Amino acid sequence: MSKPEIAKLGHFGLVSTDLEKSLWFFKEILGLEETEERDGVHYLRAWGDFEHHTLTIRQGDEAKLDHIAWRTKKPEDVEGFAKILEESGTPVTWNEEGIEAGQGKAFRFQMPSGHTLEIYYEMEKTLADPKSRSVLKNQSHKSWARGVSPRRIDHVNLLSSLPANELADFLMDKLGFQMRECVQAPDGSLVGAWLSVTALVHDIAISHDPNAASTNEVHHISYWLDNAQDLLRAADILKENGIHFVGPGKHGISQAMYIYAIDPGSGVRVEIFTNGYLIFEPDWEPIVWTLDEMDVGFTYWGDQTDTKTENNPTIKA
Amino acid sequence: MSKPEIAKLGHFGLVSTDLEKSLWFFKEILGLEETEERDGVHYLRAWGDFEHHTLTIRQGDEAKLDHIAWRTKKPEDVEGFAKILEESGTPVTWNEEGIEAGQGKAFRFQMPSGHTLEIYYEMEKTLADPKSRSVLKNQSHKSWARGVSPRRIDHVNLLSSLPANELADFLMDKLGFQMRECVQAPDGSLVGAWLSVTALVHDIAISHDPNAASTNEVHHISYWLDNAQDLLRAADILKENGIHFVGPGKHGISQAMYIYAIDPGSGVRVEIFTNGYLIFEPDWEPIVWTLDEMDVGFTYWGDQTDTKTENNPTIKA
Amino acid sequence: MSKPEIAKLGHFGLVSTDLEKSLWFFKEILGLEETEERDGVHYLRAWGDFEHHTLTIRQGDEAKLDHIAWRTKKPEDVEGFAKILEESGTPVTWNEEGIEAGQGKAFRFQMPSGHTLEIYYEMEKTLADPKSRSVLKNQSHKSWARGVSPRRIDHVNLLSSLPANELADFLMDKLGFQMRECVQAPDGSLVGAWLSVTALVHDIAISHDPNAASTNEVHHISYWLDNAQDLLRAADILKENGIHFVGPGKHGISQAMYIYAIDPGSGVRVEIFTNGYLIFEPDWEPIVWTLDEMDVGFTYWGDQTDTKTENNPTIKA
Amino acid sequence: MSKPEIAKLGHFGLVSTDLEKSLWFFKEILGLEETEERDGVHYLRAWGDFEHHTLTIRQGDEAKLDHIAWRTKKPEDVEGFAKILEESGTPVTWNEEGIEAGQGKAFRFQMPSGHTLEIYYEMEKTLADPKSRSVLKNQSHKSWARGVSPRRIDHVNLLSSLPANELADFLMDKLGFQMRECVQAPDGSLVGAWLSVTALVHDIAISHDPNAASTNEVHHISYWLDNAQDLLRAADILKENGIHFVGPGKHGISQAMYIYAIDPGSGVRVEIFTNGYLIFEPDWEPIVWTLDEMDVGFTYWGDQTDTKTENNPTIKA
Repeated sequence: MSKPEIAKLGHFGLVSTDLEKSLWFFKEILGLEETEERDGVHYLRAWGDFEHHTLTIRQGDEAKLDHIAWRTKKPEDVEGFAKILEESGTPVTWNEEGIEAGQGKAFRFQMPSGHTLEIYYEMEKTLADPKSRSVLKNQSHKSWARGVSPRRIDHVNLLSSLPANELADFLMDKLGFQMRECVQAPDGSLVGAWLSVTALVHDIAISHDPNAASTNEVHHISYWLDNAQDLLRAADILKENGIHFVGPGKHGISQAMYIYAIDPGSGVRVEIFTNGYLIFEPDWEPIVWTLDEMDVGFTYWGDQTDTKTENNPTIKA
Repeated sequence: MSKPEIAKLGHFGLVSTDLEKSLWFFKEILGLEETEERDGVHYLRAWGDFEHHTLTIRQGDEAKLDHIAWRTKKPEDVEGFAKILEESGTPVTWNEEGIEAGQGKAFRFQMPSGHTLEIYYEMEKTLADPKSRSVLKNQSHKSWARGVSPRRIDHVNLLSSLPANELADFLMDKLGFQMRECVQAPDGSLVGAWLSVTALVHDIAISHDPNAASTNEVHHISYWLDNAQDLLRAADILKENGIHFVGPGKHGISQAMYIYAIDPGSGVRVEIFTNGYLIFEPDWEPIVWTLDEMDVGFTYWGDQTDTKTENNPTIKA
Repeated sequence: MSKPEIAKLGHFGLVSTDLEKSLWFFKEILGLEETEERDGVHYLRAWGDFEHHTLTIRQGDEAKLDHIAWRTKKPEDVEGFAKILEESGTPVTWNEEGIEAGQGKAFRFQMPSGHTLEIYYEMEKTLADPKSRSVLKNQSHKSWARGVSPRRIDHVNLLSSLPANELADFLMDKLGFQMRECVQAPDGSLVGAWLSVTALVHDIAISHDPNAASTNEVHHISYWLDNAQDLLRAADILKENGIHFVGPGKHGISQAMYIYAIDPGSGVRVEIFTNGYLIFEPDWEPIVWTLDEMDVGFTYWGDQTDTKTENNPTIKA
Repeated sequence: MSKPEIAKLGHFGLVSTDLEKSLWFFKEILGLEETEERDGVHYLRAWGDFEHHTLTIRQGDEAKLDHIAWRTKKPEDVEGFAKILEESGTPVTWNEEGIEAGQGKAFRFQMPSGHTLEIYYEMEKTLADPKSRSVLKNQSHKSWARGVSPRRIDHVNLLSSLPANELADFLMDKLGFQMRECVQAPDGSLVGAWLSVTALVHDIAISHDPNAASTNEVHHISYWLDNAQDLLRAADILKENGIHFVGPGKHGISQAMYIYAIDPGSGVRVEIFTNGYLIFEPDWEPIVWTLDEMDVGFTYWGDQTDTKTENNPTIKA
């Protein structure tokens, strides 16, 4: 059997302490579509997402991302990854088909940092209901129905009190991610790492902060918009609706534009994201930034986050 | 040895009957950067292209694309593809390292339609000269130096009097391309086909026109811009400088925005291109459009090409 | 008493043969806000309009603009204009305060072409209801609530089988409009005229077509968006919702970008409009275009109207 | 004789301590066009400015705006304003025609704060040289020739250690400006004032800072771009060229987007400006903001200036 491979980021499993507020934020303000609600779990996606869902939200006692799901390239890759992980001492927990609506057999496991990931292949490519279905055969829902209206899921950024290289090494060794860009401390450890299995600069990033609340926090989840102007429109919408956010600005790393908005229900930070570059070179050498280049690297221009963790509570993943 | 794979579209080799005018168009109006000039060949690239060149231009008696080059995923894939092609009856012609500036050993061959392709792996990732170098470590040249200023090479669209499926089948069988979208005639043959080896909807497309001048024409070559607004700015620039163009408009197929501009030196059509969607699903089913869906599929909205081939001379590839 | 002056375009009074469909188009697709409904008349405005309404819609047997209203600079200018018009043989019809909701005493009259205009000064600057009110003190409603979401009313374009200069002369002589740009036929008559009392290139334009259905048709009414990108988003929304439209494109005259969409209820054409230039020079000389300059003047670039009147039914004004 | 009136902001007279660097900034980076150079004075304008110049730059020992020029509505208004000013105790200094290239007879005077203004009517509407002339009859130069490429001059913002209301009162009483928006301190004095004679929210603004270096500083001069996306492109250009700037962001007051860039030659701050609203209502009531509304009023969203004057040196006007 050939080496198993990850095809793409699949979805986020969000637990909110205020489901109603989170649904208002993700559906009315961000503008995601609801595919269905089952057993108290709301299955959402953006208008250009093809899979049944890219975000689930349910009520819980503690806000957290209870899993971050990755789709494999082939059906047999799910078993393949389970074998690799178990053989190297990482236990996995299986979920039968249909436990998560629309999804086939899948398993979850914890990274050494404690972050919970899920691996799956089978997922329904649900059609939108006729009223909201796009007239385009290559698009699920009509765009621009409500709110910010991003096109699709983009990436996740994990925050940890562990050095970023520890998490990155696991992702590269066990799951086949490639390092695309990173920020190196004088001691050689990584403060930030951007990795992908696709042409995107990152499907997943790791942020290290020695003052992070734990080893397994989530810095943000992210959805993609096609145009920078759409991001400015998003800022207007967020401000009019009382959503706290940072940005807009442009990263040097990834060259992408960002707004960081906080879901008032769960407290999860959502990066509204656009532009940037794609990597098609097969021999890409990671771009290594040093801390004294961060005036260009992190915020190329624009509004900058208050990076003090104590001012920016995060949720676990 | 594993199956050889194409990583990406590499570059276009353009022959112009009016080199000076083509250089003015590609350098001053489109805004490409010149890496070097050697033996009468000008090596150009966009500010975000990493390789030594994505377009070469030289003077000649007949305007044509004398090759369309593809980079492989691994060094040994070059030999691998040569073997596959020769064994199936397609002769290949080798170029030693350095025949084309910056490039390693490569070979060229003709598709059954007569279009000339090139396969290579080695290519210098030339740094921009200090004056025009970007302050960003992940970008070659400063952006927005002159003219339209696209970020990178995007795709090529071949035109043929042969059915599109004949060319597409060759690309899929021999080179590993995947069909992403297509337009089917009532007899089952394809009028258009969009194929890729990357997450782009197409690295290469095939347009069939029974009235095409030959089996091996080029419909257009294409460069990418990050934002739709940049395309509107491009329209202003083209109009002020007397360049003939069609657009802006939006395709349903690929969901991308376009302007088609004609290089007044060679007559090659250049699609200035932005937006659209990416394909990360590993089990993507080609989107099949019928001719009566072309009011949405070809021009979703906007300015539409006069599609009569006699009004739109093309060049050979 | 000093010469009376027009300050601005106020509103359009639209009669629709399918009120429900027109309300769907103007409220859900275009995204206007409804201030109130009274006696079957719906009073609408854009989120950035300060007055009580900029569009009224009511059901009727014949689709038409039953009046185009202009606000004067001073209260006494209403009487002033009535006097000027009556003394020069144009009868006026008075409407008492409150006949039109929010509006003070006003009068209507017909231009020699038969187009019905209204002159008023008093108009409530109604606050939006708290739920949709902007957090900005200088803006009425939250922006981007639904659909295209234009900022404000912009202009009206009258169509007539009479030469444009006849209508323009009346507007300049009696109402103080200034000619900003025009298109001149070889015989010296005007085919098009763009006039304003403000810094806009036109608050009103006149289009002449010898084949127009009458002397008093309306070519289009217009609402303004802040950015060209917003217009491209509008095209997506219109296409997804089955609205017939032409554009996007850019005029040379006025330098503005346009989409022309048809209200499926009344058949009135609505120009969604942005960019362009402002005129602050007090000694502005009208820009005179000739017919052979129309490749630049009318459609600078982009999708062009089928200008044949028989393919483009208009409504009376 | 009727009351004299100001039609518009005309131009800025900038003195730079490093002429070469200022010319590089304004011509290459900002992208203004040079109409002519005479006696060491460089006469610049944006591509959409109709007058001979909207900015002059000359070398000097102290960086400053040596005058801010205003065009009157009628030729006789120049004399009219001189009379009003002199009669109320403000001396004026006449410049004969041609002292400033392209300009007729004009006079300068100091506001009570010490800011130097100029009043003129006659100014050549110079055609661009054929090579850079626009194909549009209503536009001077081709757009997008170099750098940021703003359309036109927009406004000036004066900084003073005097309360803003003192400067605003003078502008309203003597020159006919109207207050459009203002920020009021608890004691009733104004911290900021935005005034205009046109439909723009401000042709001139006043910023009060008790720690300002003098009573007559300039906070910034401003040029206009058509689209928000053009501002983001400007940020890229400024960053690539090492220009210090703040933004992008959006003001609540005026609803306009901004970038504040510093000319490295003179130190003058230039606001690159777009969007916002226009005022056509003849009975506009000034929008009065309080200091505790400044989280919305000053920076609605985006990157915020370090407002401490000691960190932001200004030049005199």
